[in-house]
Amino acid sequence: MEPGTGRLEAFSDGVFAIAATLLVLEFSIRQPHQDLDHKLLHLWPAYLAYVTSFVTIGIIWMNHHHTVSLLGRTDRTMLFINNLLLLTVAFLPFPTRLVAEDLRAPGEEAAALAYAATFVLMAVMHEVWWQYARRNRRLVAEAIPESALRAVDHAYLPGIPMYGTVFVVAFFSPLAAVLMTFAIAAFYLPSAALFNR
Amino acid sequence: MEPGTGRLEAFSDGVFAIAATLLVLEFSIRQPHQDLDHKLLHLWPAYLAYVTSFVTIGIIWMNHHHTVSLLGRTDRTMLFINNLLLLTVAFLPFPTRLVAEDLRAPGEEAAALAYAATFVLMAVMHEVWWQYARRNRRLVAEAIPESALRAVDHAYLPGIPMYGTVFVVAFFSPLAAVLMTFAIAAFYLPSAALFNR
Amino acid sequence: MEPGTGRLEAFSDGVFAIAATLLVLEFSIRQPHQDLDHKLLHLWPAYLAYVTSFVTIGIIWMNHHHTVSLLGRTDRTMLFINNLLLLTVAFLPFPTRLVAEDLRAPGEEAAALAYAATFVLMAVMHEVWWQYARRNRRLVAEAIPESALRAVDHAYLPGIPMYGTVFVVAFFSPLAAVLMTFAIAAFYLPSAALFNR
Amino acid sequence: MEPGTGRLEAFSDGVFAIAATLLVLEFSIRQPHQDLDHKLLHLWPAYLAYVTSFVTIGIIWMNHHHTVSLLGRTDRTMLFINNLLLLTVAFLPFPTRLVAEDLRAPGEEAAALAYAATFVLMAVMHEVWWQYARRNRRLVAEAIPESALRAVDHAYLPGIPMYGTVFVVAFFSPLAAVLMTFAIAAFYLPSAALFNR
Repeated sequence: MEPGTGRLEAFSDGVFAIAATLLVLEFSIRQPHQDLDHKLLHLWPAYLAYVTSFVTIGIIWMNHHHTVSLLGRTDRTMLFINNLLLLTVAFLPFPTRLVAEDLRAPGEEAAALAYAATFVLMAVMHEVWWQYARRNRRLVAEAIPESALRAVDHAYLPGIPMYGTVFVVAFFSPLAAVLMTFAIAAFYLPSAALFNR
Repeated sequence: MEPGTGRLEAFSDGVFAIAATLLVLEFSIRQPHQDLDHKLLHLWPAYLAYVTSFVTIGIIWMNHHHTVSLLGRTDRTMLFINNLLLLTVAFLPFPTRLVAEDLRAPGEEAAALAYAATFVLMAVMHEVWWQYARRNRRLVAEAIPESALRAVDHAYLPGIPMYGTVFVVAFFSPLAAVLMTFAIAAFYLPSAALFNR
Repeated sequence: MEPGTGRLEAFSDGVFAIAATLLVLEFSIRQPHQDLDHKLLHLWPAYLAYVTSFVTIGIIWMNHHHTVSLLGRTDRTMLFINNLLLLTVAFLPFPTRLVAEDLRAPGEEAAALAYAATFVLMAVMHEVWWQYARRNRRLVAEAIPESALRAVDHAYLPGIPMYGTVFVVAFFSPLAAVLMTFAIAAFYLPSAALFNR
Repeated sequence: MEPGTGRLEAFSDGVFAIAATLLVLEFSIRQPHQDLDHKLLHLWPAYLAYVTSFVTIGIIWMNHHHTVSLLGRTDRTMLFINNLLLLTVAFLPFPTRLVAEDLRAPGEEAAALAYAATFVLMAVMHEVWWQYARRNRRLVAEAIPESALRAVDHAYLPGIPMYGTVFVVAFFSPLAAVLMTFAIAAFYLPSAALFNR
């Protein structure tokens, strides 16, 4: 029974879509709701964190899906690494809520650091995931040309340094760190999307 | 590797179904539960908001699915626009909870405005999504006749003005605005469903 | 473009599985957690409600899936009815939580009534769903013999009277009503499952 | 209409992926968020419980999927047993939250016992599930060799004694019990994964 990639994909698809949709649970307004209009406007850090996390998950999911399509088979180690990657994606709603609740509030530095650290971890796991599959074409399907692998290399390469920079920036300005994460989601990730290469 | 629409659909399907099912989390009754029967009857704004949002998501999902079936391919920009559309759908449980908790209470105007604004945004994103794909048949499959595209045009056209009207009405009567949204879900959307054209 | 049942099934599948898995959110223990062992043992109404709702959703899902497999096509009205059926399924986590929190507590009568009413509504919607599709074989696939339709008729028939009885019992003994619902899930539903007819 | 295993798989897949992703909801920090950095570091029991439960669900899902692929058909009893297995998987987020909140706190013994008991129940249901299908090759597909069945026997055999031991250990040291569960997820389960046999 040759282990295909279908099972790995189905579980991954579910986790990505659910993690993105659970992000909305970060929004909460404590009662009483007097001045609700005022409170809704002051939720802007929550909106910013929601959009940033949602768009990032959406694009990472697309890249994950594309990269899996390059694989011809998988093995136990890959399965375990994939599990750890999903674990970091499924964790994102928690630091997103911290940023939503604490940006421009006393705990903002720790919130931004936790947020950035999650993205760093996600980028590291994505790189480990890819390198394990790609090294010596360990799991790559035969028909896939080297150029397709190099395209993924180039798309994944900036992930760790970019989110590492966000992490460092979070020490100095939590708001700037979150805005950088948003900018990556809005400008860098779409251009690096492996979707139609 | 020609980018098909399958991946876009799978992620979208998940987000629609999860967003609809998460709506139930809006219901909450603070303890103690003395007079629970009384409290359950006074939850009618929550029931109204739940039915309205659930039915709307269900029908929008069907239309999304139908429209995707007209496309022959997709591209990065489409992927990004689709992400933003899903972002508005996945956001709906939050304003639904606001309406559930605040209709007939002090914060009702802001709640109804947030609710209507989410539907306006959703309608705008759906229109942008469709126009991007349809303009010059950019992503439309070759076999699809012009008449099928015009059917979608007609079905989507009233979305923005209808929900825009709801938004304006919310300033004067939050209850009327929510009832209008319900009426759209119960009467207009099913008739405009693209499901069997 | 002949409207198949695939799209209806995918959305339904998602809602069933998510509603069942969201049931776990009913469990909560207020801090402080002193005497946690004691508190966990006193959660038995929550365990009872969880098992009852979970098993019921699982079996209803199987029957829904089987019945859809008898259909050759669908239409707008069916789509709308299916949406309303899913709406009652997705609502179940709320009355389940009420039973979990209030059985053997002051609000138990209202909780059991809300729980039973949800099942009545679900049974009614399932019957409407089936009758709409089956009447004059409106949506039934050609190859399906009459005997297969009658098997579904017989399986669905007792639903409304059974849950209606539970509703009446809830006025006299909330505990008995919940136990009856459990017994239906444990004994009646599996035997009526349409799974391997 | 021969009852295939596809429907059983789709529902199971959904429950596994959703249960894993809901685990993140265990994380919560009570406001005010002063000393958030300090509080985040003291959440280590929550991180430990999250990683343990997530990785375990991921691997059990893979094994479930592999085992279902050995079956040629299913029946009502199997469907019911599968429902009970999923019920224990979907329950895991609750004891995971107890461990997250109470490890190194007054309620830790009860929390670790509840956590271990859930894994014992899960292992028991998995064994019942497998034995029902495998005994006299009741549901096994014809083409499957005996050796493939024995491989599953060996992989599933240690489950109950291992988690039973964790349960006993929890009486003496809750922390040791959780660490053992983590070790099983990190070291034993991947090696026993049926994924590529």
